[in-house]
Amino acid sequence: MWKTGITKIEPNHIVTRGYRQEDLIGNVPFAHTIFLLLKGKMPSEKEGKMIDAILTSSIDHGVTPPTTLAARTVASAGVPLPTAVAAGILAVGDVHGGAIEQCAQILQSWANKGKPDKVAKSLLNKLKTQGKRMPGIGHRIHTEDPRTKKLFAMAKQLKIAGVHVALMKAIEKEINKDRKKPLPVNVDGAIGAVVSDMGFDWQLGKAFFLLGRAAGLVAHVYEEMSREKPMRRLCKPETEYDGPWERNL
Amino acid sequence: MWKTGITKIEPNHIVTRGYRQEDLIGNVPFAHTIFLLLKGKMPSEKEGKMIDAILTSSIDHGVTPPTTLAARTVASAGVPLPTAVAAGILAVGDVHGGAIEQCAQILQSWANKGKPDKVAKSLLNKLKTQGKRMPGIGHRIHTEDPRTKKLFAMAKQLKIAGVHVALMKAIEKEINKDRKKPLPVNVDGAIGAVVSDMGFDWQLGKAFFLLGRAAGLVAHVYEEMSREKPMRRLCKPETEYDGPWERNL
Amino acid sequence: MWKTGITKIEPNHIVTRGYRQEDLIGNVPFAHTIFLLLKGKMPSEKEGKMIDAILTSSIDHGVTPPTTLAARTVASAGVPLPTAVAAGILAVGDVHGGAIEQCAQILQSWANKGKPDKVAKSLLNKLKTQGKRMPGIGHRIHTEDPRTKKLFAMAKQLKIAGVHVALMKAIEKEINKDRKKPLPVNVDGAIGAVVSDMGFDWQLGKAFFLLGRAAGLVAHVYEEMSREKPMRRLCKPETEYDGPWERNL
Amino acid sequence: MWKTGITKIEPNHIVTRGYRQEDLIGNVPFAHTIFLLLKGKMPSEKEGKMIDAILTSSIDHGVTPPTTLAARTVASAGVPLPTAVAAGILAVGDVHGGAIEQCAQILQSWANKGKPDKVAKSLLNKLKTQGKRMPGIGHRIHTEDPRTKKLFAMAKQLKIAGVHVALMKAIEKEINKDRKKPLPVNVDGAIGAVVSDMGFDWQLGKAFFLLGRAAGLVAHVYEEMSREKPMRRLCKPETEYDGPWERNL
Repeated sequence: MWKTGITKIEPNHIVTRGYRQEDLIGNVPFAHTIFLLLKGKMPSEKEGKMIDAILTSSIDHGVTPPTTLAARTVASAGVPLPTAVAAGILAVGDVHGGAIEQCAQILQSWANKGKPDKVAKSLLNKLKTQGKRMPGIGHRIHTEDPRTKKLFAMAKQLKIAGVHVALMKAIEKEINKDRKKPLPVNVDGAIGAVVSDMGFDWQLGKAFFLLGRAAGLVAHVYEEMSREKPMRRLCKPETEYDGPWERNL
Repeated sequence: MWKTGITKIEPNHIVTRGYRQEDLIGNVPFAHTIFLLLKGKMPSEKEGKMIDAILTSSIDHGVTPPTTLAARTVASAGVPLPTAVAAGILAVGDVHGGAIEQCAQILQSWANKGKPDKVAKSLLNKLKTQGKRMPGIGHRIHTEDPRTKKLFAMAKQLKIAGVHVALMKAIEKEINKDRKKPLPVNVDGAIGAVVSDMGFDWQLGKAFFLLGRAAGLVAHVYEEMSREKPMRRLCKPETEYDGPWERNL
Repeated sequence: MWKTGITKIEPNHIVTRGYRQEDLIGNVPFAHTIFLLLKGKMPSEKEGKMIDAILTSSIDHGVTPPTTLAARTVASAGVPLPTAVAAGILAVGDVHGGAIEQCAQILQSWANKGKPDKVAKSLLNKLKTQGKRMPGIGHRIHTEDPRTKKLFAMAKQLKIAGVHVALMKAIEKEINKDRKKPLPVNVDGAIGAVVSDMGFDWQLGKAFFLLGRAAGLVAHVYEEMSREKPMRRLCKPETEYDGPWERNL
Repeated sequence: MWKTGITKIEPNHIVTRGYRQEDLIGNVPFAHTIFLLLKGKMPSEKEGKMIDAILTSSIDHGVTPPTTLAARTVASAGVPLPTAVAAGILAVGDVHGGAIEQCAQILQSWANKGKPDKVAKSLLNKLKTQGKRMPGIGHRIHTEDPRTKKLFAMAKQLKIAGVHVALMKAIEKEINKDRKKPLPVNVDGAIGAVVSDMGFDWQLGKAFFLLGRAAGLVAHVYEEMSREKPMRRLCKPETEYDGPWERNL
């Protein structure tokens, strides 16, 4: 016997998380339905707005991220669209999107330990002694990530921001105390903090990035298929072979 | 030089299809943003409602479809969430979600040839002589798919339904003229017809299914990871080995 | 009831294609076992040598092919080794490895129509009128592919070369009759011709490439994981955004 | 600059790990070439025999393992062969094939600590206090895995078996001291021990399983494509929906 709490299927009757699909379709925004699927209950109006914003904040970041590069590379080899999109999703990994999960996990185990400023200091000290960095901080291109700013502003305005966002901001402040070049909270860190305040399990961290990015990946794969030649050289790295010298068997 | 019309990345500045991402986030519903990504322009309010409904209509159909079975099977082997979701997406194939594309392709090349009833007859005759069936018709469980009904009702109400939906309905009527057990338009057929009336390239057919289903796949993979034992027997098919008799080398 | 001719599983007893696995292990070379799996019967000594050579001929072609680039890109995102290798395998597509299948399909339907030279002419004329090219011919780097040469030499020496290799060579001769820059049979074309002479279904075409290349992909993924920094910029394409001008919502 | 020690590509000249590919093809068995790719040097005759046996020991275990079930499920949805094979490879995870890696990691850090019997006791005590089990022990079907027996016999005969195999056997002995139903070393445990004695990095653990299993997956995908109907019900689990009661929006 295989139990599932997601969808009940009967002839002409499909019920997801308790709601008939024909009731959800057209009445509940798609992003709210995603919340329903992941949480098992309908979001409040504010939660719905927030999850919608989170999904949009992950849609695309140009052609260079591993997700996009992998998807376009596979698309260029002449495969169906879903195969190429899936290749992109495989690149949602510990160092690409993974900071959401790592950051949420840390915030969820520290946020209730006391005042944000004090907790931030202890946490950063602990990480330092472990030779680790706080995930969700820093970006190779942006010094102030416009997506972070917007997500934090919305979380505040919607009264969703709580102890996790407060801790994340305290961490950012502490890290930047004596720095000249700012290390900002990046979009992964912002999502990790906000979904923690929304009560999501940190193990779902990569899912938010994945669901937003899937949309951008479809656009890239379609662009590759419709605008570019098959098997074009997407990437011409200068390479140096440093293996064994040529030799006879 | 690699040209892309999707996203421009500059430090602290991310522009997708002409819009700053911080403007999209929280202001444009996620489903509308998906339309923007795929079409390159913002949907009208009506188009936005329609694409949102289409995405929700594909979210989930229980544990048995290949997408879900593949995702849960892979999840049960102890892999990261995105790896399992991607395995599910690989199962969006010619016979699972693929009818959207096939149906849209046919509708787009026939819909402008004349009156729906007449065109439906010619088309079905042609398919018959080729030994083919009309894709997007029939379902192994539903005799009247509640998702189809809702999508067609919305398309009509939003004044999006045009020649393609008309042709699809004429085809359904023609096919069922002399049948006792009804062969209804399924959800793939409904999506294929509606996205054709929205001006989408049929080559994007599988993308609508994929983007909706990704949400359900995340829910299933998370349920598998959090409720079930690793490597449980998801499936115990009765098997019969009919290969060569056992023999010595 | 699910029938399979591949493997019978009983407690302490595993029989594949009729042979006990403990008999195959260590007694039958791995490449011969692959032949056994695909064909259902043990190869002759000559067939075993040939399939072994074919698998080795596909192992690796440096960092730029889509298979390798996709695998290393995904590996750089911090995922398990099999996830990255699978991403590479997804790039075995119609224009990357796919020529084996296309070439074998064409050869298998033309090779028995008459003398190679004459058939080659008719075939090339037919393809020309269809606006198509013969697959398996030409390479973006090699003018004389050393793998092709070796495979054809072995096929001849082992007396495996038959009508399909003969036709492929006739096609090459005909194509190059009036060319200055040679268009040689590439490794895909050679494999397509030889496996056709070995009686393999053309639908298995991509499998030979995939099974050989999987070995190279493992080496690349392992090299990426052990020698390179996570999320390094594998590829810095010069890009130009040519989407809509920046605009307000 | 991108350094690689695997393959050097020049026009008409392909050198892998120092050897010209045309020299490898047909002269070095495919399994030996895999060793060369993974280790960077040619195996001795004995190492070559051993790696060949290891690869064959992973080829197939019928239709129920997650790798095979995922591959056939995806194949049934109407996708290209490599897409379905890749879906199977995604299921090489921590609890399916992953024991090779976990077992090799443990053996490699304990094997040089002293006499096998004593080390086995300490190790098992340590694992017990951590609430963990030794990976590579036990099988849901086999009480004496014929593959393990053969691999260990070969490792002994070829004089490859060393401290790691000795420790693994001591662990098995210790675990089974007071048991009635035997818990045998399974094929993962055997491979983990033998590749450790061959000097392979434990991080390559899943690779040996993956490379062997890829062959079986191709056979299964091809069997699914050529013998079965598209979208057949591969699996009809009895399911029970235990989500929220049906409700109105």
